[in-house]
Amino acid sequence: MEYTKQNLDNVISSVLPLDCDAMDECRKRQAQLAKPPGSLGKLEDISIQLAGITGHVKNTIEKRRIIVMCADNGVIEEGVSSSPQSVTLAQTINLTRGVTGCSCLAKHFGDEVVVCDVGVNAVINCPDVIDRKIAMGTENIAKKPAMTKEQAIKAILVGVEMADIAKAESVKIVGVGEMGICNTTTSSAVLAALTDSSVEDVTGRGGGVTDAAFAKKKQVIEKALEMHRPDKSNVIDVLSKVGGFDIAAMCGVFLGCAKNRLPVVVDGFISIVAALCAVRLCENVRGYLVPSHHSFEVGYRIAASELDFDAYLMLGMRLGEGSGCPIAFEIVDAACAVINTMATFEEAEINDDYLTDIRKEDSFTVS
Amino acid sequence: MEYTKQNLDNVISSVLPLDCDAMDECRKRQAQLAKPPGSLGKLEDISIQLAGITGHVKNTIEKRRIIVMCADNGVIEEGVSSSPQSVTLAQTINLTRGVTGCSCLAKHFGDEVVVCDVGVNAVINCPDVIDRKIAMGTENIAKKPAMTKEQAIKAILVGVEMADIAKAESVKIVGVGEMGICNTTTSSAVLAALTDSSVEDVTGRGGGVTDAAFAKKKQVIEKALEMHRPDKSNVIDVLSKVGGFDIAAMCGVFLGCAKNRLPVVVDGFISIVAALCAVRLCENVRGYLVPSHHSFEVGYRIAASELDFDAYLMLGMRLGEGSGCPIAFEIVDAACAVINTMATFEEAEINDDYLTDIRKEDSFTVS
Repeated sequence: MEYTKQNLDNVISSVLPLDCDAMDECRKRQAQLAKPPGSLGKLEDISIQLAGITGHVKNTIEKRRIIVMCADNGVIEEGVSSSPQSVTLAQTINLTRGVTGCSCLAKHFGDEVVVCDVGVNAVINCPDVIDRKIAMGTENIAKKPAMTKEQAIKAILVGVEMADIAKAESVKIVGVGEMGICNTTTSSAVLAALTDSSVEDVTGRGGGVTDAAFAKKKQVIEKALEMHRPDKSNVIDVLSKVGGFDIAAMCGVFLGCAKNRLPVVVDGFISIVAALCAVRLCENVRGYLVPSHHSFEVGYRIAASELDFDAYLMLGMRLGEGSGCPIAFEIVDAACAVINTMATFEEAEINDDYLTDIRKEDSFTVS
Repeated sequence: MEYTKQNLDNVISSVLPLDCDAMDECRKRQAQLAKPPGSLGKLEDISIQLAGITGHVKNTIEKRRIIVMCADNGVIEEGVSSSPQSVTLAQTINLTRGVTGCSCLAKHFGDEVVVCDVGVNAVINCPDVIDRKIAMGTENIAKKPAMTKEQAIKAILVGVEMADIAKAESVKIVGVGEMGICNTTTSSAVLAALTDSSVEDVTGRGGGVTDAAFAKKKQVIEKALEMHRPDKSNVIDVLSKVGGFDIAAMCGVFLGCAKNRLPVVVDGFISIVAALCAVRLCENVRGYLVPSHHSFEVGYRIAASELDFDAYLMLGMRLGEGSGCPIAFEIVDAACAVINTMATFEEAEINDDYLTDIRKEDSFTVS
């Protein structure tokens, strides 16, 4: 794929709304299952959403993939993180080995992890890391725009490309994760820009910075927003001025999954900011998004409210990487199991006639 | 086991507190894992709790069992339910066949379901239902105490017995479910009695009653509480006057799991009321309880607050049966995977010396 604005526009215009007929059929099936109407809550909603995505009432998600976008952020210079930049590199490698938070969970649950370098500040010669490096990290947003508009478009299209590959390889559900020291700083900046929120309301402690570094982090975000004045109605402008390669590429994965009619899990703070970018680029993307955990990071709530999005998991997690995706996949899998295997009222033989019969009897024998 | 007060007292006194040394060891291990401290939230807390329960830092939960207590409630006479009583019988049978909400999920995730009749209002000749019937349903609490104190003790000890069997059969984690038309009515009555809450605050629509039946449901609970004046400091008194065989037996499963040092999942409204009964009987039980979903049923929050308990799952579920347990087991399984397989800082080679080294290099090669 050529990484051009024209191609991005083509992707955006190719994202279709959900299949309403299939969703209606699925609602009918749910109403026939032997339970009080709506009593399985989100497990019912998920099955209806999957029907809208795939066009089929019954779905399975036997092949699941987490796409992890890795990149460094020039804003590290400002002292806004508790970890040195080299952690991005080390954990990018470790993600391929099943020993990080996300990848050990993925391995345990049988999920694939695809690790993609879109801007780690080191040359990585690891065959299991997909090389789509755009630059050796972004610029420091406290001083310059993070990247050019062309780079932002390229990063988004790399995400689309990874979704295309997932579809071609028969993946049934995708999760989106990241690795990039300082990316809560850039995510908060993007979220503030897109929603006119105060920096205070969207900025948390990320990996766990000191009070001094936390104050600095907020100052840096304020400064970057004042200096670059990103245009909230223009996602590419926002991403290029105060974003990161990881966020832009994740935005592309959401867009690409929607284009390919794949359900895609939004996991954690950085992920939901990227999802919001994707929805701002293309409203139809919203229907393809599946919630995961409610991030402990303070801005999550604001992004979730923008997306009208209720997280399924309250686990106080804030590790990133897409570490909630493996559990979210299990929830979606549960929703599939219900619609695929639960008895209808008729099958459960608790329709009215039957009830009248057994109410007359003292005894009920099963051979 | 003889179902005597003396035996119940013996069980209560045999429940030991969690193993603090093992919990400290587990906290140390969590601090060594390559992640910001506390960033895996509840997944860390669960591993520490499991260490306290089993005495080992690393645990697995390969054999999981949901124990479903089935019983009828005489209060059905008052018209407080949307379903006829015969649904208890039909679904008790269906639970053994893997086609109900809970059992289809359990089957899908490879969890065992044990179905125990403690008071279904029918003779059940089904070999897969364990017969511990105490009576053909309880009395109508709007007119009489639900059961005798001896019956309440027997029901609790049946629950303990099922936990003993689980332990003997090498089960590693238990979930507690129920089937019993009208058991949200009895659960609300027990919760109001134990916590001095208003009936309004603890009573929801259960399976989904009409406005008229909902008003009636609250009136009936008020009436039962006024008539029987259960002693909030005496769980047996409360259970026997306004409870049900299912709630009492579930209370026994919680108690029995604690006695047997087994983690036990509290799933849904009726389950959490039974768990509260168990904790009131024996404070040490609290350490063995594992949350599941936040029930849509209004009283859940009050019981959870009494137990200082945060649900992991926000799925708007209110089906009962223990239908959230299979997903809760996956969360506990995830917590085990993290503590068992995630790299330490040392293993991840992102200790300080290493970082200093790689920061000096432009390139990082992995063979």
